Amino acid sequence: MGKRIHNFNPGPAALPLTVLEQIQEEMLDFKGSGMSILEISHRSKLFDDVINDAVERTKRLLRLDNEFHVLFIQGGASHQFCMVPMNLALDNKPVDYIDTGTWSTKAIKEAQIQGKDVRVIASSEDKNYSYIPKDFEIDGKAAYLHFTSNNTIKGTQWATFPESGDLPMVCDMSSDIMSRPFDAKPFGLIYAGAQKNIGPAGTALVIIRKDMLDRVPDNIPTMLKYSTFSEKNSMFNTPACFVIYIINLILKWLEETIGGLEKMEQINREKAKLLYDTMDGSDFYRGTVREDSRSLMNITFRLPSEDLEKEFVADALKEDLGGLKGHRSVGGCRASLYNATSLDSVKALIAFMAEFERKKG
Amino acid sequence: MGKRIHNFNPGPAALPLTVLEQIQEEMLDFKGSGMSILEISHRSKLFDDVINDAVERTKRLLRLDNEFHVLFIQGGASHQFCMVPMNLALDNKPVDYIDTGTWSTKAIKEAQIQGKDVRVIASSEDKNYSYIPKDFEIDGKAAYLHFTSNNTIKGTQWATFPESGDLPMVCDMSSDIMSRPFDAKPFGLIYAGAQKNIGPAGTALVIIRKDMLDRVPDNIPTMLKYSTFSEKNSMFNTPACFVIYIINLILKWLEETIGGLEKMEQINREKAKLLYDTMDGSDFYRGTVREDSRSLMNITFRLPSEDLEKEFVADALKEDLGGLKGHRSVGGCRASLYNATSLDSVKALIAFMAEFERKKG
Repeated sequence: MGKRIHNFNPGPAALPLTVLEQIQEEMLDFKGSGMSILEISHRSKLFDDVINDAVERTKRLLRLDNEFHVLFIQGGASHQFCMVPMNLALDNKPVDYIDTGTWSTKAIKEAQIQGKDVRVIASSEDKNYSYIPKDFEIDGKAAYLHFTSNNTIKGTQWATFPESGDLPMVCDMSSDIMSRPFDAKPFGLIYAGAQKNIGPAGTALVIIRKDMLDRVPDNIPTMLKYSTFSEKNSMFNTPACFVIYIINLILKWLEETIGGLEKMEQINREKAKLLYDTMDGSDFYRGTVREDSRSLMNITFRLPSEDLEKEFVADALKEDLGGLKGHRSVGGCRASLYNATSLDSVKALIAFMAEFERKKG
Repeated sequence: MGKRIHNFNPGPAALPLTVLEQIQEEMLDFKGSGMSILEISHRSKLFDDVINDAVERTKRLLRLDNEFHVLFIQGGASHQFCMVPMNLALDNKPVDYIDTGTWSTKAIKEAQIQGKDVRVIASSEDKNYSYIPKDFEIDGKAAYLHFTSNNTIKGTQWATFPESGDLPMVCDMSSDIMSRPFDAKPFGLIYAGAQKNIGPAGTALVIIRKDMLDRVPDNIPTMLKYSTFSEKNSMFNTPACFVIYIINLILKWLEETIGGLEKMEQINREKAKLLYDTMDGSDFYRGTVREDSRSLMNITFRLPSEDLEKEFVADALKEDLGGLKGHRSVGGCRASLYNATSLDSVKALIAFMAEFERKKG
């Protein structure tokens, strides 16, 4: 089967090996149809079963009641930055955003481009987005409150979500969706690019509470309306069939192999703890994020010098530990520990880190 | 490897078996990286090579000079119906459309939703879109002229394209891109959902002439600007990596196995002729399209009764001939003969048709 490395990529990222093997196995003949999943009609019973299964699994895993639609919309989270204000803003009401950097900042920019009354009610820009803001007031008079649950680049994550009362929250969960259970009820809309925790690149998972659909303006383009997708089970036009098929296989793995999101969270906490403990017990590796804001998904750290960081990333790759370079905008190192990155991979990483520190520290 | 049927699906549709086999072969380890193509970063050299190769192959196959950008944009052709007028309309100029049904009609609707001054300068609605209009005048004062090169549902295709002089043409080539050579110079923009002739569902191929980029308004959402994609080689955000990878494999097959678009057209003409000759030589099968407007890609036909049509589709499937049901909006039968549908499949189909007519005719 060729070699397989320990994959710490920030996204697209590791997928479960058993899922890849199933894709490989049924590539030429999907369920006895004599066609590849890539060749079947999105209007066929075969594909209906795939997309309906993915919707139902999403609902079970996140404990969503019938007040929510589960949608698949192409274009990634960046496309949602545009769709959210276009669909969910309300006349004469501001739209509120919390700025935790990068993706939040881009989401804010897209609302501003549309001329919405954008209020940034909290920000961690003062310390290079190295923490999640705590002291802010939520104003129920806004149309919604938008925030990003996890910042892949800065390595921050909301440990618990804001309490917004009746104000609908809108959240970009691209990099931690399905990594832990949470209560979806206060959310008017949740979106997530698939390519971190639930699949390959090529679609966003969008969860919309039904009352939000009343806000969709009539006069916007058809493909930019959430109602277009909710009314046609995401098949107004041809969806990203293959990506949805893989998402479904991964959700099945989450349910049946892992055993649900409580179990997934336990494993994710165990993986992250191994790595943070290594950093905290060392003067050589240094975390970049305030302790209460540390991400369980993307663990950012620095070494004593940039030269050592380069050497670290290069030597790691020689030991089949890939994807450890920090984002080009911040430098340093980063290990992304999404759902499909195994405990064994993390153990291999901390063993390498200890050895590298012994040699270079 | 399981069975393989003769696949006449209208899209998603047949892919070359050798391409599927390569996908299968390298699913767990892409080019010795130790990762699946589904798991590698879009910012990696490995993926850069894939997308750059796909761009270069597109340019070679369509003989595009450096005046054109080749882009990959998620959302399918339906999303382009919205982006085209949003980006390419000009103040104080009308946008002109030719209505050959279905997709053309939807494209017109999206321009109207945006409040553009839409003129339908020709239409074949009077005869249920069963022909391609010939008598119309092109007005150089418009911002662009939009038409659809092939209608998958009605089974019509432009045999030759309009001559528009200096007026940029915009064309939806979703269902016949790469099926034949053509001169791209008069086109300001060409778009095509991938899931017919060049790949699976999940991206549109967009070819834009550089002068069109000057028209992109500043104040529209980032992900709806063609310039966002042209400036970042389609990677402002994560693109549909896997779909682009498959497109590249199919373009390679077109170049290296088929031998280019002239050869592809010859084969496509041969396939279509076999089927049209069968219909023309029979009183049992009846074509639905005016002879000069017949599609080489989607061949629509009726049988003497709807009951016989149902029986035909069901019996064909028993003989491993799939996807022959007409679109739900028009009924009847349809055989889609995209690039990857082989001459052998067409021969199997006409043999079945002869036998079915012998038994039921």
